[in-house]
Amino acid sequence: MENKLITAIDQIFHPRSIAIIGASDKQNSFGRMFLETFIETGFEKIYPVNPRAEEILERLSYPSVKYIPDEVDLALILTPAETVPNVMKECVEKGVKGAIVLTAGFGEKDAEGKELEQAIVQIAHSGNTRIIGPNCIGIYYPAYKLAHFPGLPLESGSVAMISHSGSLSFFVPRIASKKGIKFSKVISCGNECDLNAADFLEYFGQDEETQIIVAYLEGMKEGKRFYQLAREISPYKPIIIWKGGLTEFGARAAASHTGALAGSNLIWQALLSQTGVISVESFEELLDCLTAFYYLPLPNGKRVAIIVGQGGPGVASVDTCIEMGLEPAQLSLPTRKALAEIVTRAGTSLANPIDMGMGSMFTPEAYQQAIGLLARDENVDLLLVIRGYSPYLITSVFEETLATVKKPSALVFLGAFEGEIFSARGIPIYSDPRRAIVALAKLAQYSEFRRQALLIK
Amino acid sequence: MENKLITAIDQIFHPRSIAIIGASDKQNSFGRMFLETFIETGFEKIYPVNPRAEEILERLSYPSVKYIPDEVDLALILTPAETVPNVMKECVEKGVKGAIVLTAGFGEKDAEGKELEQAIVQIAHSGNTRIIGPNCIGIYYPAYKLAHFPGLPLESGSVAMISHSGSLSFFVPRIASKKGIKFSKVISCGNECDLNAADFLEYFGQDEETQIIVAYLEGMKEGKRFYQLAREISPYKPIIIWKGGLTEFGARAAASHTGALAGSNLIWQALLSQTGVISVESFEELLDCLTAFYYLPLPNGKRVAIIVGQGGPGVASVDTCIEMGLEPAQLSLPTRKALAEIVTRAGTSLANPIDMGMGSMFTPEAYQQAIGLLARDENVDLLLVIRGYSPYLITSVFEETLATVKKPSALVFLGAFEGEIFSARGIPIYSDPRRAIVALAKLAQYSEFRRQALLIK
Repeated sequence: MENKLITAIDQIFHPRSIAIIGASDKQNSFGRMFLETFIETGFEKIYPVNPRAEEILERLSYPSVKYIPDEVDLALILTPAETVPNVMKECVEKGVKGAIVLTAGFGEKDAEGKELEQAIVQIAHSGNTRIIGPNCIGIYYPAYKLAHFPGLPLESGSVAMISHSGSLSFFVPRIASKKGIKFSKVISCGNECDLNAADFLEYFGQDEETQIIVAYLEGMKEGKRFYQLAREISPYKPIIIWKGGLTEFGARAAASHTGALAGSNLIWQALLSQTGVISVESFEELLDCLTAFYYLPLPNGKRVAIIVGQGGPGVASVDTCIEMGLEPAQLSLPTRKALAEIVTRAGTSLANPIDMGMGSMFTPEAYQQAIGLLARDENVDLLLVIRGYSPYLITSVFEETLATVKKPSALVFLGAFEGEIFSARGIPIYSDPRRAIVALAKLAQYSEFRRQALLIK
Repeated sequence: MENKLITAIDQIFHPRSIAIIGASDKQNSFGRMFLETFIETGFEKIYPVNPRAEEILERLSYPSVKYIPDEVDLALILTPAETVPNVMKECVEKGVKGAIVLTAGFGEKDAEGKELEQAIVQIAHSGNTRIIGPNCIGIYYPAYKLAHFPGLPLESGSVAMISHSGSLSFFVPRIASKKGIKFSKVISCGNECDLNAADFLEYFGQDEETQIIVAYLEGMKEGKRFYQLAREISPYKPIIIWKGGLTEFGARAAASHTGALAGSNLIWQALLSQTGVISVESFEELLDCLTAFYYLPLPNGKRVAIIVGQGGPGVASVDTCIEMGLEPAQLSLPTRKALAEIVTRAGTSLANPIDMGMGSMFTPEAYQQAIGLLARDENVDLLLVIRGYSPYLITSVFEETLATVKKPSALVFLGAFEGEIFSARGIPIYSDPRRAIVALAKLAQYSEFRRQALLIK
């Protein structure tokens, strides 16, 4: 049985051709930037539309979408708000399947803008056109050479994103790509006058290219449906959500940002506790958690072994593990005996954290052995290695060793800047123990939710 | 009236000569590393002591401190634990004023180690020798060419650090120096068999080179005295503390790390609420707060104006401000009127956050004007500018403008890695809005404490 919604969204992601209505060659304009981005990605069938130009960036410009001598599946609309109803009418007549309205000044502005939104939806639905936006930046689908902003990579991956913020729909993939994380499809959904976050969640739930779903949300147009979809999907695909507008002030800001009713914190807490959704509280936490979910297998439990080269960070890390709901693993007797051979430092060495002692900076191979022992210990579910970073440190030893570990493992290079540390081998590396622990704790929490959810089924 | 304690610590920081007892030319040994570090910093009067060598790194080696043909003010002791009592005896006879015992395996190991500690204190106090350590890495005093670890800068600044962790006493100054933050004096105090954190707090309280005190603490040998000192000092010098060992597991780890009794969370909470001490929970938070306190003036209140180039981060940032105890400023009417001229985007533009709209990426000068207006608004105490980062962004506009603002102001470049962003003009720059807001909130909280504390006096 065909699902009309899925088909409609799928068509938006697979246009045979795109019209950029409001394209321009004016420097420092969005009309130019979006056109240039498509030229850069190499998407072939791009048609600039602008009645005041005959040619834009060496491409023929059309006065209206209706004069384009080709089928047009997708239209990007950049013209002023008051012109959009007429533009939409022409799109419908042309048989455009998806219209992405980038223009702002609709429902987020005033009651009049809200009416304008309703008007364009009515026009679109008089034909077979669906709308994304207004007040958004559109879609990013690297496999299909669709990029909504300059500078995004075209390699395809398994992460989908839904964002009420246009900028975050760009900055999250951009920074994530520097950590080797690649995206399947991204949508900036703006004011959601037609298609909304619940629609996109349903779509990504069944999308074979998507394994992880991240979202920045301010309000939910169909809260109950979103809740039910999240509950169905999250045992199979982790859903990581950063929620804005949780306070009264934030909600007010959200209303004027995307015209969304942010909804109360209580509803949001209910969603979190019952659907397995992973909640994050900041831009970096979103990326930290995504990194863990992208690269790591799910742990069988929440018992963590911490190996440190430095006592202080080890002590504080145990505190953070407890605070975040992880358990310091009780190492098995054979592991403790074998560790005693490797670790010269007395005391903590046989407990957890395993303090390798300051001298271990000279003997990175001791880490290799210790990591191997902990990886084989049945009492250990997750592994956290914390090491001071210096330009002299042979970081590859740590990466290579952790790459062989099947349990979820993360590496912290204390004293490094984030830009300095990246593993091409798929090891999540953090610059701060707390950030690593928060990510591992959410991984363990999700894993437990998933086990229970699948057992019940 | 002379304060003996202050004099004793001051002498340790100003040695005329240093003996490195246990110096070595063996590759990958601490005996070599510490000697090399002093050679590198250019501290002149360094005497290696090692009975099994005649020369180490082209310097004459002495079989014992007593054969050094010069006064010795400071001794670094690296020899095995069981040899330390005898070494200490020779130091006392030589008239050494400060002995830094780097060797581990004392009180943090077992009861025997604890006894050994007591023994060396007794020997030291039979003369005029004071001990730092054992199980530490010593002192860093750039103005005097004393560095306890390779790779630290020798420029002097206004931040002092007390650390129960040797590694953090190195990693905090190292990373901070990349943000332009310079240190007055740093002490890694280890097991504190003699001089302890309260002693160093008292010293830094009166030290003219020190304006800000940071600390990583696990336990407190003299809790009550530390508390009283903190209360006296903190209205004049902010004290930023990261506390390890707050949980039962963490406290156990602390005991085997530096032999410290970490004390209960309740005592710690009392200290925080009554002394104005600024508490941080992670390595990065410590550095984030230090950056704010180092570069920014104290705000007159907690009303923050947020300028964003992107709506989403603005919405979430308002939430975080509320959560952290800051207030979104109610802009004055003239400011709102003037902003309306600059900001094209409707809605949020006149409220707070001030959403400059996506188009502002093409007009950085609009930020200059908006920042100027907010800086002059009497209803605004602090300023937070959040901007998406891209290699094309002219970041200097933001830095230059903020450099002219007298109110405490921070900059967030969203989507930047921390290593990419640094201001030579003393503007705190963060890679995540939440981290900036936490730092500004603690600055405002401290400022309020300080005002009240000074009023009472």
